[in-house]
Amino acid sequence: MFALDARLQQDTLPLGDFALCRLLLMNDAHYPWFILVPRREAISEVFQLSVVDQQVLWRETASLAEKLKGIFAADKMNIATLGNVVSQLHMHVIVRHEGDAAWPAPVWGKHPAEPYTDAQMASIKEKMQRALADNFSFTEVAR
Amino acid sequence: MFALDARLQQDTLPLGDFALCRLLLMNDAHYPWFILVPRREAISEVFQLSVVDQQVLWRETASLAEKLKGIFAADKMNIATLGNVVSQLHMHVIVRHEGDAAWPAPVWGKHPAEPYTDAQMASIKEKMQRALADNFSFTEVAR
Repeated sequence: MFALDARLQQDTLPLGDFALCRLLLMNDAHYPWFILVPRREAISEVFQLSVVDQQVLWRETASLAEKLKGIFAADKMNIATLGNVVSQLHMHVIVRHEGDAAWPAPVWGKHPAEPYTDAQMASIKEKMQRALADNFSFTEVAR
Repeated sequence: MFALDARLQQDTLPLGDFALCRLLLMNDAHYPWFILVPRREAISEVFQLSVVDQQVLWRETASLAEKLKGIFAADKMNIATLGNVVSQLHMHVIVRHEGDAAWPAPVWGKHPAEPYTDAQMASIKEKMQRALADNFSFTEVAR
């Protein structure tokens, strides 16, 4: 049984599910910062996934990155799986703009998260709903 | 024609080539920190690679990460493609140990690089030569 790590749950807003991964939005208005979590139990390294799951994770990651680059007019996409703090395997997919709050450094540890307003969240969800129509089921999780 | 970015060339030591990627060792003795660079021209985002190249990049990345975890008894592998400073697509594959110089933060920007001694470099090359016998051609680049 897949259960989302408590820290990820606390720091993010769930958007929905791809075939393999849950898509989360980091609740930090500094950057459009998304996280993909394979819905598999007890996995902390990518190579612990089956070869097929790895291929799907990679396709979902690269496809999401490409869409986000378009939606948010990114200057650069940052893709990373670190897991030094949260061991549940998760892939960061982060939209970077020249001159954003951490640019050109990586985003981790640079600034305390700045929670989205309701209006900002609604705007992002609306953008994502238009972009992810296929192969994605949006969640209706109350928070 | 593939040409390695000048900054990557300056900061790393070349180890050799997989089918797609050049394997570099970051010249920083703080962490066993490797970089894979697809030998393709003018690519800065993973989704600009062909689908086949993406699959190979992912296989080379995941397989390297798994081997490094064993060779260096990693507590966690960090895998990332950022590219905010060096735009040539490159994938970081970094061995992390609890209590290393940056732990649990990501390694970027934490400490000035500490160049390897000749003996340290020889030791790493020897470990890698035993581990990467298949599907890898070691470079004999003088530096």
